[in-house]
Amino acid sequence: MVRVAQTPRIRRSPFYDATIAAGVTEFTVYNKMLLPLSYGDLAAEYRRLTEGVAMWDVAAQRQVQVKGPEAGQLAQYLTARDLTRLSVGQGKYVALCDYDGSILNDPIVLKLADDRYWFSTADGDIALWASAIGTERGFNAVVSEPDVSPLAIQGPKAEDLVADLFGDETRSLRYFWFTETELDGIPLVLSRSGWSKQGGFELFLRDGSRGADLWERVAEAGERYDIGPGAPNHVERVESGLLSFGGDNTPGSNPFELGMAPFVDVDTPVDYIGKTALQKVVAEGPARLLVGLYVDADMADDWPLPQRTPITRHDRVVGTMSAVVWSPRLERTIGLAQIEGATVEAGAPVEVTAAHRTHKATVTSLPFI
Amino acid sequence: MVRVAQTPRIRRSPFYDATIAAGVTEFTVYNKMLLPLSYGDLAAEYRRLTEGVAMWDVAAQRQVQVKGPEAGQLAQYLTARDLTRLSVGQGKYVALCDYDGSILNDPIVLKLADDRYWFSTADGDIALWASAIGTERGFNAVVSEPDVSPLAIQGPKAEDLVADLFGDETRSLRYFWFTETELDGIPLVLSRSGWSKQGGFELFLRDGSRGADLWERVAEAGERYDIGPGAPNHVERVESGLLSFGGDNTPGSNPFELGMAPFVDVDTPVDYIGKTALQKVVAEGPARLLVGLYVDADMADDWPLPQRTPITRHDRVVGTMSAVVWSPRLERTIGLAQIEGATVEAGAPVEVTAAHRTHKATVTSLPFI
Repeated sequence: MVRVAQTPRIRRSPFYDATIAAGVTEFTVYNKMLLPLSYGDLAAEYRRLTEGVAMWDVAAQRQVQVKGPEAGQLAQYLTARDLTRLSVGQGKYVALCDYDGSILNDPIVLKLADDRYWFSTADGDIALWASAIGTERGFNAVVSEPDVSPLAIQGPKAEDLVADLFGDETRSLRYFWFTETELDGIPLVLSRSGWSKQGGFELFLRDGSRGADLWERVAEAGERYDIGPGAPNHVERVESGLLSFGGDNTPGSNPFELGMAPFVDVDTPVDYIGKTALQKVVAEGPARLLVGLYVDADMADDWPLPQRTPITRHDRVVGTMSAVVWSPRLERTIGLAQIEGATVEAGAPVEVTAAHRTHKATVTSLPFI
Repeated sequence: MVRVAQTPRIRRSPFYDATIAAGVTEFTVYNKMLLPLSYGDLAAEYRRLTEGVAMWDVAAQRQVQVKGPEAGQLAQYLTARDLTRLSVGQGKYVALCDYDGSILNDPIVLKLADDRYWFSTADGDIALWASAIGTERGFNAVVSEPDVSPLAIQGPKAEDLVADLFGDETRSLRYFWFTETELDGIPLVLSRSGWSKQGGFELFLRDGSRGADLWERVAEAGERYDIGPGAPNHVERVESGLLSFGGDNTPGSNPFELGMAPFVDVDTPVDYIGKTALQKVVAEGPARLLVGLYVDADMADDWPLPQRTPITRHDRVVGTMSAVVWSPRLERTIGLAQIEGATVEAGAPVEVTAAHRTHKATVTSLPFI
């Protein structure tokens, strides 16, 4: 067991003290911030998420704000999706790409006002990228990272809890839509979103000094639903085929290779970085795809897979596996992999090697559940 | 004790297996890679560094390569220092700034050829920044992160060891100069550099598959000098006043606020990002400065300081402390802090609070030793 060092270079979340009190046992570092990954009982955390409700410190999902008269133009130029009909109060899952069409991040973009957007980002210094593009292109917009830290409430009972906290009208909030609100004077953006397919909300805390207050308020209100601490859940996200940006994608991947085709617009009049390259990908077809694997083995000991591992077919490397878990709901071992387009057909047999052992596996489409 | 999670999103160094075999006990995450911070005996690691020789896996100090006919122009435009007289085979410590003069990174820039530069970077996605600037400005140069991973050999006996490995002519290598070479067929760049003031070299491994070979070769040759594993040393670097980028600087700091004045050129004909803003800083004087503190307390238990802590004078916050250590050579507790310009004079009394206790301290100039 190797410890994670704590230094001022790695930021603490506003919920840090609360997560320590709740017994966090494992962190990762995400956007230069400590991100809790477990509280020591993965089975209970999975159960809460899939059957009840869990609260997650996901402050490390930092917001990159674009603000100013031309914020909309800059946000669009950064985003490989047509934002023309994005309404104030609405979010969309998007890809940010470089000039070659390689994906740089897969944030949710939230339109707070005509002149203010947030990119709720995966791991990566998107503020650097956005400010360089914005300034060099001369857009009248300022890029910053505001004091905004999401607390996620996820699981089938999340809606009841959020209705208790914010009123029954929140039940009608559509997926990825949000509202600016508060709770006991704590300023928030409340969004129906979160990195699971179990339903839920994200409470974007807008005052870092109120982290303990918000955590406590949610924990108290959640008692009747048996709420407990959790974290972005590796098992559920593999079952649901949710992309772990930076983990599932190898460098240079484009969004079409990662199952993001529904969220990328290439036949749009709007211009954005990487559009020409992505049009070419569509014309030629992606070279590889993110797929599911059914693995003929109990690989639970390898959780989480510490690094990518090769996938072979007829002794030739055809891709890499980035995650493998035992699925309690499917009662089998499943994985995520990027493999060559030619090997993608469902049912194709492949082999994966992990922890020095080779196992048979078959390709399947995503999501598993 | 909280574990660090291992996932494919966090990369392993080519020396990873060797560091595990050597007993690494603590990692941080740096440039999305695991960076060893200790092998469990900090006193022995400090002694080896200051009296003998230590080997450090610093692969997380990633290289951002700028290559092409206009690589020199792009490298200069990114860098707040005149690179006109930088020779092939020479490196320089530089600041990369944004348009406001705020520092984005403090790399060593190495000129490998007229058309090829490396920025050996601190923590931060400088490849994103450099590629955005390069493309938007139309420079004919490609930005990438090549397969290059430094192994540092640091300490007063480092030169003898490197002479044994590469020949006596390496003794004449000047500080920050480097040479392209190899060791038993392992391709390397050998540089006189490293994040300590104890003297030493960095071996930039240019083939990630040879990490174990290089580690073993250095360990074997170092036996006669009683070499052992180590890591960027928190105590020695505080004594030496070496900047930990992202830890010692608060967001928005400029290089003049971090003791980097000797490495920034504002009276130069060359143009670079942030130059106008930095000229203004010089004219008006920096608002705050990185200084040393003598602390009237034994704060060894707080190693490393997990987060910045306030510094007060007459009950008013005048800055923050980012590091505090017990110095074996000075036999006292010392710290690093960013404080207001008006409070900077040597000998000024201040108070610092750490681990819920307040201690008296006095300001001093850097380095301590």
